[in-house]
Amino acid sequence: MGVDEYLSELKRKVAASLPSVRVKNVEFEGPVLVIYVENPQELAESGDVIKKLAKDLRKRILIRPDPKSLKPPEEAKEIIRQIVPEDAQVTSFFFDHENGEVIIEAEKPGIVIGKQGVMLREIMKAVGWSPKVMRTPPIKSKTVDNVRQFLLSSREERKEILKKIGVKIHRGSFHEEKWVRVTFLGGSREVGRSCYLLQTPESKILIDCGVNVSNIQQSPYLYVPELQPLDSIDAVVITHAHLDHCGLVPILYKYGYRGPIYLTPPTRDLMVLLQLDFIEVGAREGNPVVYESNLVREALKHTITIDYGVVTDISPDIRLTFYNAGHILGSSIAHFHIGEGLYNIAFSGDFKFERTRLFDKAETNFPRLEALIMEATYGSGNDFQPARREAEERLISIIKETVDKKGKVLIPTFAVGRSQEVMIALEEAIRTKKLEGLTVYLDGMIYEATAIHTAYPEYLNTHLRDMIFHHGLNPFISESFTQVDSSSKRADVIDEAEPSVILATSGMLNGGPVMEYFRHLAGDEKNTIVFVGYQAEGTLGRRIQKGWKEVPLTSNGRREVVEVKMNVETVDGFSGHSDRRQLMNYVRALSSRPEKVITVHGDESKCLDLASSIYKTYKIETRAPMNLETIRFV
Amino acid sequence: MGVDEYLSELKRKVAASLPSVRVKNVEFEGPVLVIYVENPQELAESGDVIKKLAKDLRKRILIRPDPKSLKPPEEAKEIIRQIVPEDAQVTSFFFDHENGEVIIEAEKPGIVIGKQGVMLREIMKAVGWSPKVMRTPPIKSKTVDNVRQFLLSSREERKEILKKIGVKIHRGSFHEEKWVRVTFLGGSREVGRSCYLLQTPESKILIDCGVNVSNIQQSPYLYVPELQPLDSIDAVVITHAHLDHCGLVPILYKYGYRGPIYLTPPTRDLMVLLQLDFIEVGAREGNPVVYESNLVREALKHTITIDYGVVTDISPDIRLTFYNAGHILGSSIAHFHIGEGLYNIAFSGDFKFERTRLFDKAETNFPRLEALIMEATYGSGNDFQPARREAEERLISIIKETVDKKGKVLIPTFAVGRSQEVMIALEEAIRTKKLEGLTVYLDGMIYEATAIHTAYPEYLNTHLRDMIFHHGLNPFISESFTQVDSSSKRADVIDEAEPSVILATSGMLNGGPVMEYFRHLAGDEKNTIVFVGYQAEGTLGRRIQKGWKEVPLTSNGRREVVEVKMNVETVDGFSGHSDRRQLMNYVRALSSRPEKVITVHGDESKCLDLASSIYKTYKIETRAPMNLETIRFV
Repeated sequence: MGVDEYLSELKRKVAASLPSVRVKNVEFEGPVLVIYVENPQELAESGDVIKKLAKDLRKRILIRPDPKSLKPPEEAKEIIRQIVPEDAQVTSFFFDHENGEVIIEAEKPGIVIGKQGVMLREIMKAVGWSPKVMRTPPIKSKTVDNVRQFLLSSREERKEILKKIGVKIHRGSFHEEKWVRVTFLGGSREVGRSCYLLQTPESKILIDCGVNVSNIQQSPYLYVPELQPLDSIDAVVITHAHLDHCGLVPILYKYGYRGPIYLTPPTRDLMVLLQLDFIEVGAREGNPVVYESNLVREALKHTITIDYGVVTDISPDIRLTFYNAGHILGSSIAHFHIGEGLYNIAFSGDFKFERTRLFDKAETNFPRLEALIMEATYGSGNDFQPARREAEERLISIIKETVDKKGKVLIPTFAVGRSQEVMIALEEAIRTKKLEGLTVYLDGMIYEATAIHTAYPEYLNTHLRDMIFHHGLNPFISESFTQVDSSSKRADVIDEAEPSVILATSGMLNGGPVMEYFRHLAGDEKNTIVFVGYQAEGTLGRRIQKGWKEVPLTSNGRREVVEVKMNVETVDGFSGHSDRRQLMNYVRALSSRPEKVITVHGDESKCLDLASSIYKTYKIETRAPMNLETIRFV
Repeated sequence: MGVDEYLSELKRKVAASLPSVRVKNVEFEGPVLVIYVENPQELAESGDVIKKLAKDLRKRILIRPDPKSLKPPEEAKEIIRQIVPEDAQVTSFFFDHENGEVIIEAEKPGIVIGKQGVMLREIMKAVGWSPKVMRTPPIKSKTVDNVRQFLLSSREERKEILKKIGVKIHRGSFHEEKWVRVTFLGGSREVGRSCYLLQTPESKILIDCGVNVSNIQQSPYLYVPELQPLDSIDAVVITHAHLDHCGLVPILYKYGYRGPIYLTPPTRDLMVLLQLDFIEVGAREGNPVVYESNLVREALKHTITIDYGVVTDISPDIRLTFYNAGHILGSSIAHFHIGEGLYNIAFSGDFKFERTRLFDKAETNFPRLEALIMEATYGSGNDFQPARREAEERLISIIKETVDKKGKVLIPTFAVGRSQEVMIALEEAIRTKKLEGLTVYLDGMIYEATAIHTAYPEYLNTHLRDMIFHHGLNPFISESFTQVDSSSKRADVIDEAEPSVILATSGMLNGGPVMEYFRHLAGDEKNTIVFVGYQAEGTLGRRIQKGWKEVPLTSNGRREVVEVKMNVETVDGFSGHSDRRQLMNYVRALSSRPEKVITVHGDESKCLDLASSIYKTYKIETRAPMNLETIRFV
């Protein structure tokens, strides 16, 4: 059945389910079925009917009103203000004529939505516009604003893109043969450049497309024939925004890919932030240009966001659902349901199987799961990490000692994830006077990344959300934090006589403002550098961690050797990765026991060790493939 | 360096090595460097110089004379007759003006060639034509004649094809990255449709392309994206002529492949014979048409034959050498040398690690070998076969018993391989009076296949060659053998009162004339059916072997049920496959111990069992991949 026929049939079904509604048209925008109706007010009463319809059709449904049914914006704004209680604190309206949507930003979006969406329906009935509610972020994020603005400005183009994607997804199945296989294109038996191709006779899905942070020349094997032409790929799925998982997504568009990128909303925004920073850092350090910012925008134009738990068709025979991975904001386990009950395979991405300050622990409850591709960063038998509470205490005591010596504490971190965990721990220590009168400087996008966290509180764990929204205690906006956003400020921080804590990117000292701090602070034994995240083989971070007393640095094109006299500490336990015990427990905790577990994203020995341990402990078939290998599942 | 530049350089080198020779041009025809010279007579004296040049350039070299230097054919023929001693028994001449070659067919080609080619050089010097000597076959083979005739008639087109292939082979290397991987596209954890893709960043080599004899609808996974477009394949390499290894080669040309097929000369002729028979049998049994005979010819046009032990460039970074596999006439182990010393990988094809009546045992002596892809037909711990001598005795005693009861013995066999082994055993038994006055009927291409054997005596083992050429005792042309080549003759054989032995194809009772014999002989308990070859799962042969007392048959479109009352016997030990002990011994015997052994071409349990045993016994890493999987080697 062709897409047109299929849509006609859907239109008939929709009309039959909604007899009082005048359905003008139905069409696919990407995976979503858009229903254009002439009397959306009618529909406002039929919230449950829509839900039921979505369930029956196994489709995500979006209602769009006919333009004639819309109240003029000024009038509509007034009406909405009357409907929505004041304590929702609406801060702005945006009327999108193209789509008949009104975007309402409010401090308390839940109030705008109302119980089970009752208020939304009331608004729609009153003004015609389809209301979309967003939270007013407590810290203004430029990235979030820019992304929203860009997506609105390219809405028409996006609509065309989405329609094409919709046609492709619903093209129908053609092969009688059934098989499922995965080709490992990067990030296998190594950390960096994660990239996997999930393939059936009908579909090609690329999961992640990362850069190797310790050697940016080393990209995934994108030139292999099974990916050619790149536009034969149906969908790119991004598990989370770290560059080793999404850093090379833009070059896919350079080499001919024109399809969708599925990710969670926070992953989208963080990805843009980190990709633009990747370009900037690269330019500053004189690296060869991998891609320009126009390609970041091109990729952004093709993003389709999906929240946790929403089942979405992404090809004729594959449904994608994201689940919380607990690693960083928006990080996901990507679960693929293949065929009608044929096979279920999940890619863990990076995941944390422990509740942290920010996130709930990674999801273990899947309707079905035959195979799991899981990370093995800490996969060795001896890769145990202390509990989070212990790690925090140790960090605070190291800081105390250094501060007592009037030294400075430099903490290299990824902008996203570790920084926020450390921030919250420090904020608490300062608030509860365990640390006193200390300034914590945030340099290199950490502040911006934090802003994005505050824009997506529904992706944080309930405790933190409660603290922020019900107790008015947002640790991210504590006065102890000072943003550093210029090199003169940086120089001030370095020269300052007072002790302080500096959180700066990048986390493995392979670029970013941390380099400048390190260069100036390394020579003084009063200072301390504290590693709180994973240091990949080959990075400067790893060398310092190993105890090198002299390290080569390149700054402004000059090479120099820096003597390391500062105190070097590693505080394990802040990692966003599951440690060995958590990895093993995760497999046990899975509600649906997989037949196969594949270990990736770890040094060779870790992948092999974890694979062998899972096999021995649980009698589950395991493999630790090499890059360029293909494993068949069905 | 482009091909043109490369050729200019070669031309300079050739001219420098052969100062007295006027080199008109050099060009590649496929992997061979062809040197056109104006005074080939000069060159006739420089045999060793050519050899040395070939070694220095690491190229196969062919000399072609300038047409002006050629004597008129009639005159040339007379001169050759004077040069060549009469006991060479020259039977025919063929002058190929296009290539300046004279093809001389003789009973004793060795005499025409002379010691180290001395006589060839004399002929060339005297007549200008480049002599090519072929053996006059003792039994006339239509196939051999037709193949030669066809190749001569399409010589001009072939020359263009070969030139294009030459350009492609010498296009140069472009990738800095080095890796080697193999994708298993058929014949893994199963017997049938063997097909493997050997891949480097530079090259794609397809090894075998077979049909599943028990289900001809099941072809290798040729539609997977890593093979697209098919013309991105550099070369197809065929290990031997059985249909499960070469049956689908012609359809490659239907779907766009235009490159070369590398095989030994006997494999080429047997392949054509078996492919044409495949079409015929298919048509007779009303199977869907897989391909037509024009595609067999198209494939033939692209064949490039290589004798055992000749190292040949087949792509910018891959050199192929065939070694004796001992399985059937011309069967090879295909050895690939990748890069300049980067990696060596061999595909055993089907092989016999035991000297048989026809062949030497499979080669174990490779200059280097890091990985072996080996067959596992008899890979289980209990797959032991009796010695050949024992098997022969048992077969003869079964025949004797049946003959004593005045019954007929039906032996289903592959036309190629088993038939000839059984023939030689029976001929000896009859000659030495162990069996007396018995007629052995050969039906369904067995005679023709035998004729091809006699055309390539250099591919038989020395004992048989000696018997034929030095003792004038060619068992293949014994009077005990009678060819059956029409259905009326077949009816006569069936109706005949006298006991007899009938060898008929196909070997697994999935078509061919054996079906007719079986249908008529099955109901009489005086008769015996003797299985001497492997019966694949799903074939009628396997069912009868398992003891089914009633089997369904389709003949002339009618389905009927045949009662099996005849005596059913299996004589193990005639197999062209190595048994378990031979498989294990082969790995031990390898002169160069491989790092990896991959088992294929066997039921799942056999592949797994053999892989596990080799690992346990020799501590060599092993794998038994599934179809559609990819294993990386470097």
